[in-house]
Amino acid sequence: MKIIRVSVTPIAFRDPPLLNASGIHEPFALRSIIEIESDTGYIGLGESYGDAPALAIQQQVAPQLIGLDPFQLNQLRAIVQTTVAAQKTTSLPGAELAPGSHASKAVSNAYSAFEVAFLDLQAHALNVPLVDLLGGAIRDRIPFSAYLFFKYAQHIDSPYKPDSWGEALSAQQIVAQARRMIESHGFKSIKLKAGALDPEHEVACIKALKEAFPGVPLRIDPNGNWSLATSVRMAQLLGDDLQYYEDPTPGLDGMAELHARTGLPLATNMVVTDFDEFRRSVALNSVQIVLADHHYWGGLRDTQVLAKMCDTFGLGVSMHSNSHLGISLMAMAHVAAAVPNLDYACDTHYPWQEPDEEVIKGGKVPIVDGCVTITRAPGLGLELDHDQLAKLHDQYLSCGIRQRDDVKQMQRYQPEWTSVKPRF
Amino acid sequence: MKIIRVSVTPIAFRDPPLLNASGIHEPFALRSIIEIESDTGYIGLGESYGDAPALAIQQQVAPQLIGLDPFQLNQLRAIVQTTVAAQKTTSLPGAELAPGSHASKAVSNAYSAFEVAFLDLQAHALNVPLVDLLGGAIRDRIPFSAYLFFKYAQHIDSPYKPDSWGEALSAQQIVAQARRMIESHGFKSIKLKAGALDPEHEVACIKALKEAFPGVPLRIDPNGNWSLATSVRMAQLLGDDLQYYEDPTPGLDGMAELHARTGLPLATNMVVTDFDEFRRSVALNSVQIVLADHHYWGGLRDTQVLAKMCDTFGLGVSMHSNSHLGISLMAMAHVAAAVPNLDYACDTHYPWQEPDEEVIKGGKVPIVDGCVTITRAPGLGLELDHDQLAKLHDQYLSCGIRQRDDVKQMQRYQPEWTSVKPRF
Ligand SMILES: [Mg+2]
Ligand SMILES: [Mg+2]
Repeated sequence: MKIIRVSVTPIAFRDPPLLNASGIHEPFALRSIIEIESDTGYIGLGESYGDAPALAIQQQVAPQLIGLDPFQLNQLRAIVQTTVAAQKTTSLPGAELAPGSHASKAVSNAYSAFEVAFLDLQAHALNVPLVDLLGGAIRDRIPFSAYLFFKYAQHIDSPYKPDSWGEALSAQQIVAQARRMIESHGFKSIKLKAGALDPEHEVACIKALKEAFPGVPLRIDPNGNWSLATSVRMAQLLGDDLQYYEDPTPGLDGMAELHARTGLPLATNMVVTDFDEFRRSVALNSVQIVLADHHYWGGLRDTQVLAKMCDTFGLGVSMHSNSHLGISLMAMAHVAAAVPNLDYACDTHYPWQEPDEEVIKGGKVPIVDGCVTITRAPGLGLELDHDQLAKLHDQYLSCGIRQRDDVKQMQRYQPEWTSVKPRF
Repeated sequence: MKIIRVSVTPIAFRDPPLLNASGIHEPFALRSIIEIESDTGYIGLGESYGDAPALAIQQQVAPQLIGLDPFQLNQLRAIVQTTVAAQKTTSLPGAELAPGSHASKAVSNAYSAFEVAFLDLQAHALNVPLVDLLGGAIRDRIPFSAYLFFKYAQHIDSPYKPDSWGEALSAQQIVAQARRMIESHGFKSIKLKAGALDPEHEVACIKALKEAFPGVPLRIDPNGNWSLATSVRMAQLLGDDLQYYEDPTPGLDGMAELHARTGLPLATNMVVTDFDEFRRSVALNSVQIVLADHHYWGGLRDTQVLAKMCDTFGLGVSMHSNSHLGISLMAMAHVAAAVPNLDYACDTHYPWQEPDEEVIKGGKVPIVDGCVTITRAPGLGLELDHDQLAKLHDQYLSCGIRQRDDVKQMQRYQPEWTSVKPRF
């Protein structure tokens, strides 16, 4: 089997005005859609970061894959390494919300983007679902959590009609958001993206969620925007309300100190984002749960390696998410299906994306009873809707955004806004 | 694809009277040969431990695999776990030379034995070499080292005609053994199995090898048969003669102390034999090189995981071997081909096996310039020679050995021999 065509298509889709530690989401989120065609007539799909630096590397790698056998993942890695080494990449402030945008992660990111498409092709050649290349499904239904955000009712300057979720700033509004999300998707656990408003208020929102949804596991994620002192103080207020405490404070040392002082289980997608940080975290006992993400950990196979390492070192495993569409969701689901120690429901931004902006045929992947059911058709079991792809690519061309910058976007609302962290 | 037939055939092949820390090799080594046939007409092959406890589990697992899809490795693991949990296994003194024979490793061993055959079937279905399921070959030629043993000229009671290697007890005889092995196979590094004779004499043999083969990397492996004090003293005599110092002294604590006191790179296949021991070794800095072995680390995929963990924690990777035939050798070679950080030439007992006792068609796999070239035919690229299999199975039935016991065998030579360790 040989690769005869590779396309990398940047797309933009509407994204609500969601608040976070850096600032606020821009009106459009960027992604890149990868198609790889084999001489046997299969198409392998991938979805990854669409920000300019990531996209540039993907576009440089793409033509070098022509003629390659999709089983040669080690050759893919070598090509990516050479390509990245030949250029300088930079990262922007705020990029730590999307660990995949770190310059230092460029090899792993670009490799991951293509690895999924390569595995999709391999599985197509075998006529088996992709999960079968990962050892087979231990579970068919992958649990996800309701991912709540503080948000404004609409974007500044109203680039398009406001989303249907409305404002969410008060505890009451957050509870309403959770209720709607659980009613539509059946989620069995709740995560609140924090680090955006006053910490006491964010903790009060957790208390309100606890009262409204008794027994439902809760998580809070301030994205490292709380100082160690604030994190300890909030831990005292939170008591045992949380399933885990996600990235309250920055740094491996800060997290280690926080765990030592509170004993709370700490989760991360910020301080353990590659294998070297994993090693350092083990030495410091910084975190107890790693949120895996195949987009920057080195693809589906290395996500399995990470899970095995977590098992070895007694760490829990869950999954991290950025704004994404169905290809990423199904890739997450297939690897999650094959990870024995998937200890917690995974994160996903997916409910925040509009139903008319999916690039796969058939529209959005359903989330029922809080779960995504893995496809059983060959590979990822997905086909691209080329009309939708063209529409979202046109939107990419017209939207003008080329690299996510939540700080600059917030400065449009509040000119005095800075990227200083931790803010609280 | 479904499994329609599984056979587990114990075999015995002639093994020379090789000395080690436990005692001496018996006249026959035991292995088990696994054949798994799919409804698509392929045969997947595996080779593993043939000792009674390992064989019993393999034989109990085998019929449960009928109807299973060879892609369902996670189901294979579940079947093996249930089977092992249902029985008690025991291990004998001396079993630490073959970590695979530890009762605690039973799940991992039995899983490994079948995992290779499952992957062989998967690769056959795809019409690709097995290495392509592991990411593709980074190298086609896998380096092995010359594996020297102190030995007697013949087994007690002469069960068959003496081997052609003769006695090797003196430094001169060891140098001659190395010379013949290098002349026939082109090995570029040398390992001396030690822990059998007086430590000063064994170190003198290393000195003689250094003089006879200047610049060739040397290793000594006393199999934990030296006390910490002896290991330190021998380290002083050895200076920087060694590429690495393999399992001189027992235990993770002993190895950690030895490394702290000497600074020498320590390798092991005895104190780090599973992922939990890996974790403890990292905490103690017990070893610097792990000798992987897919027969007890959980198959080819988990050997890749181990290699990635070694990379993460700054440890070197090489490979361990027991007495084995060509299926094991080629499985080792395929995974070694896909491991980026294969830092050292692998161990193999293979040159000690007689050319008329190979079970694969075409006879023994050639080792040229110290390397095994991986097969490029589908799967492992090997076919069973059923006449040879029948012959070696008959030999198993007639030889009377059912579980390796180097201690008891040595007591036939020296009735006062004990299993006490460390002996020196
Ligand atoms: Mg997070
Ligand atoms: Mg050894």
